[in-house]
Amino acid sequence: MASVLLAVFVNGKICKDPNMISVDDFFFPGHTCDQLPRLNTLGISLVRIDYAPYGLNPPHTHPRATEVLVVVEGTLYVGFVTSNPADPNVKNKIFTKTLYPGDVFVFPEGLIHFQFNVGKTNAVVFAGLSSQNTGVITIANAVFRSDQPINLDVLTKAFQVDANIIKYLQAQFWWNID
Amino acid sequence: MASVLLAVFVNGKICKDPNMISVDDFFFPGHTCDQLPRLNTLGISLVRIDYAPYGLNPPHTHPRATEVLVVVEGTLYVGFVTSNPADPNVKNKIFTKTLYPGDVFVFPEGLIHFQFNVGKTNAVVFAGLSSQNTGVITIANAVFRSDQPINLDVLTKAFQVDANIIKYLQAQFWWNID
Amino acid sequence: MASVLLAVFVNGKICKDPNMISVDDFFFPGHTCDQLPRLNTLGISLVRIDYAPYGLNPPHTHPRATEVLVVVEGTLYVGFVTSNPADPNVKNKIFTKTLYPGDVFVFPEGLIHFQFNVGKTNAVVFAGLSSQNTGVITIANAVFRSDQPINLDVLTKAFQVDANIIKYLQAQFWWNID
Amino acid sequence: MASVLLAVFVNGKICKDPNMISVDDFFFPGHTCDQLPRLNTLGISLVRIDYAPYGLNPPHTHPRATEVLVVVEGTLYVGFVTSNPADPNVKNKIFTKTLYPGDVFVFPEGLIHFQFNVGKTNAVVFAGLSSQNTGVITIANAVFRSDQPINLDVLTKAFQVDANIIKYLQAQFWWNID
Amino acid sequence: MASVLLAVFVNGKICKDPNMISVDDFFFPGHTCDQLPRLNTLGISLVRIDYAPYGLNPPHTHPRATEVLVVVEGTLYVGFVTSNPADPNVKNKIFTKTLYPGDVFVFPEGLIHFQFNVGKTNAVVFAGLSSQNTGVITIANAVFRSDQPINLDVLTKAFQVDANIIKYLQAQFWWNID
Amino acid sequence: MASVLLAVFVNGKICKDPNMISVDDFFFPGHTCDQLPRLNTLGISLVRIDYAPYGLNPPHTHPRATEVLVVVEGTLYVGFVTSNPADPNVKNKIFTKTLYPGDVFVFPEGLIHFQFNVGKTNAVVFAGLSSQNTGVITIANAVFRSDQPINLDVLTKAFQVDANIIKYLQAQFWWNID
Repeated sequence: MASVLLAVFVNGKICKDPNMISVDDFFFPGHTCDQLPRLNTLGISLVRIDYAPYGLNPPHTHPRATEVLVVVEGTLYVGFVTSNPADPNVKNKIFTKTLYPGDVFVFPEGLIHFQFNVGKTNAVVFAGLSSQNTGVITIANAVFRSDQPINLDVLTKAFQVDANIIKYLQAQFWWNID
Repeated sequence: MASVLLAVFVNGKICKDPNMISVDDFFFPGHTCDQLPRLNTLGISLVRIDYAPYGLNPPHTHPRATEVLVVVEGTLYVGFVTSNPADPNVKNKIFTKTLYPGDVFVFPEGLIHFQFNVGKTNAVVFAGLSSQNTGVITIANAVFRSDQPINLDVLTKAFQVDANIIKYLQAQFWWNID
Repeated sequence: MASVLLAVFVNGKICKDPNMISVDDFFFPGHTCDQLPRLNTLGISLVRIDYAPYGLNPPHTHPRATEVLVVVEGTLYVGFVTSNPADPNVKNKIFTKTLYPGDVFVFPEGLIHFQFNVGKTNAVVFAGLSSQNTGVITIANAVFRSDQPINLDVLTKAFQVDANIIKYLQAQFWWNID
Repeated sequence: MASVLLAVFVNGKICKDPNMISVDDFFFPGHTCDQLPRLNTLGISLVRIDYAPYGLNPPHTHPRATEVLVVVEGTLYVGFVTSNPADPNVKNKIFTKTLYPGDVFVFPEGLIHFQFNVGKTNAVVFAGLSSQNTGVITIANAVFRSDQPINLDVLTKAFQVDANIIKYLQAQFWWNID
Repeated sequence: MASVLLAVFVNGKICKDPNMISVDDFFFPGHTCDQLPRLNTLGISLVRIDYAPYGLNPPHTHPRATEVLVVVEGTLYVGFVTSNPADPNVKNKIFTKTLYPGDVFVFPEGLIHFQFNVGKTNAVVFAGLSSQNTGVITIANAVFRSDQPINLDVLTKAFQVDANIIKYLQAQFWWNID
Repeated sequence: MASVLLAVFVNGKICKDPNMISVDDFFFPGHTCDQLPRLNTLGISLVRIDYAPYGLNPPHTHPRATEVLVVVEGTLYVGFVTSNPADPNVKNKIFTKTLYPGDVFVFPEGLIHFQFNVGKTNAVVFAGLSSQNTGVITIANAVFRSDQPINLDVLTKAFQVDANIIKYLQAQFWWNID
């Protein structure tokens, strides 16, 4: 999966000397991939994500943002899982949908979600996020591939499998897809 | 100018009975133009705007949102004007830029701004706005074409032209472009 | 029109060493006209505006504040125009009122509004604004008298008049009334 | 002390059907004393207070608002006391000032403050408060004259005086000056 | 009364270089009494308070926080007084309760409240406060024992007692209990 | 692991008729386990969690709250994992600590964290959370045990293991520990 982020961390409340501001403080040419530290209190981000055929944006959360996504090209299978229900006998619910160009989908703040290009061609989306500092937590990386591993007893109890399974999951190649 | 709004007024903090929510509460098929009143505290909007050749989104403000715009197709000339400087001897500044596909531009909250398709083909943008209730004020409509006209003395003094000019401006055809 | 601003940009959450604060950090003698940069997160401003007979505070917006105004002396004709209705076939509405001493009026955040002294004597108001950094955008200045003019095609299309009218509007004397 | 409150509890984000709103939803004639429940999310209040000669607005707090006050007529002695210092060996500080017409003073959110007309004539102020629901707690009323008295042991320990003094303070005539 | 504050002024939005953060930025060993200035935007505080038998946390307010308290050991008599009612003929209400281990009580933001250990043994509570910068104003200290006394006329009028009573109250030993 | 939640969802801004409020609107007797729907905008929760020996609160997030935890009894091994670093070649960091009675630890909003009773006796903590509606997402439940399983291709790609491992993880007994 190829991923190009136009992660715009800009700020509508300007702290620079107004006489020193130029139009380029508000402009970001195509395929900018860096954060833009000059301006920082906008309260919104806009990103473009490109998916190769069968490319996956794996289960992840944004700890500080809701995401609204529109498909521009391709066919995406998307979904999210709700937080724990109040009733301890009820499972977390999953919501999934196959999206086509023009379709819009919402991922509520902090919930685990994913997008999967199920078409044979590239897919392209634009997504707005309700913070200039959204954060991303890729679940597989945070749980099984942190710089030091999470305690083995914690993970065997949490996932209810034996230590060999956990070690096998921890041994897979680490990749940071975005 | 053709304008299609995918104005997503949705809410990450769900007030419906969780057992009654379906995936379609988070999904909006392509070319949806209506507000979606079921969900209302998301804190973000995402819109698509289509511009015919030489189509104009005329000077307007969003009283409650900053806007981040990315060009998907076409060539757009965009700009905004700053608020009054603290120094009464200094004029409001204008910032303008010609944008191409992939370029991103920011319009800070409440400032007067415009987009103009300066190419011979359609232009398409996606814009994220930092509120689910942004508001739009088209300046020409609000100043010269409200349901009852603004007092003639107010407008002649404000624009420093005689009453005939104001009346001529008020007599133009009213159009609400979005 | 004479305008005296007691623009109090002060901050209730004190960042100075508490041992260094004196009562004068909270006090602003009469007819102070400057911003007070020492303190900056109060969340409120208070201004006094004086109007000569037939003085006008021309159509303007505050991009980040609602305004509540009380008349102390004189007779003021005031008004504001709503933002664009959801229904594209409906015009923006205007609300106006003639105010006498003791009357209070509210101008919601970001909407275009004006005050006009319609009496033969001076008028005086106090206005509270819901931000310590309200901003002011005088519509005529921002649209027709920015430091570089807005593109002529943009303005002729927006106001639906020919270029001579726009140039005439742009040629009027620039004045920053507050 | 005579006190006239123009307590404007109005709301810039209108929940009424926009077709049903009239200008009187934004207008409050002179000497209005009631709350205005129709509109309620403005984020600001504006009040007028009139003080008879030697009239006192006794020590009180606003639990949810900073106050900015401007003197229109008369001579006011005002003050506030800071919250407890971090150093337990340091006393709370008092800040006081005598104000004349045109002077502005700030009372930070939640701090105990007072205004005292020290002139022989009436005094008039306008005050902006950073909430539409500021609350007022008159210290003498809340501590010594609640509907049921605060436990005597609590008050004798808190004020370090014997029970007779507390009972004497509790026995004074209750008055709600606002 | 012995009072141990674990006043955690920490910040979830880390401003330090992420490579320089260690686990001790999130850890505070038992009986820490100091503010922790490294991190400061958490939006919450957690405190432990220990009360000797018949120990009193005297009437005070937190100008910027609601408090939720749970009793771990002992028996506490607690209460708060409401802000002034809208009806000027109605007194402030008091709400009191005797709490036992496991009981939870809420003190709304800015209201005057107290806790009193009415048992023969120590009492221990944990309290969460909805700000990392809550502030504390001990009423007796702020009103009668500020560094310079509040004007005598102000206090005699406010409490409706003669100057000797006020001077007696001001003469008591100053103590800052937390 | 036994877990008793005193989840206090109460509200300092009272919407009930003030004459109808009683002290029990602010009081919650010990071992209350239900949500308290009468009051709902407090902005803070306080919970007690009891851990059996070797009891685990498995990796989970709170999508809308930072958590501050104090240990009252027992020995807890706690930790959290940071969100994805900006540098795609750097792994998520883990922070862990063994806590004893009196120790305080902070889990920043939205990050994956856990607590594990590593002692032979029960452990008890109190935790303050910076929202009255924090949400809980148990990672193992949300990823492997939602009401309908997440698509197998999504999970095999995300965790980089074959389908049999994913099916084995999905087949474990579902348990909602809080």
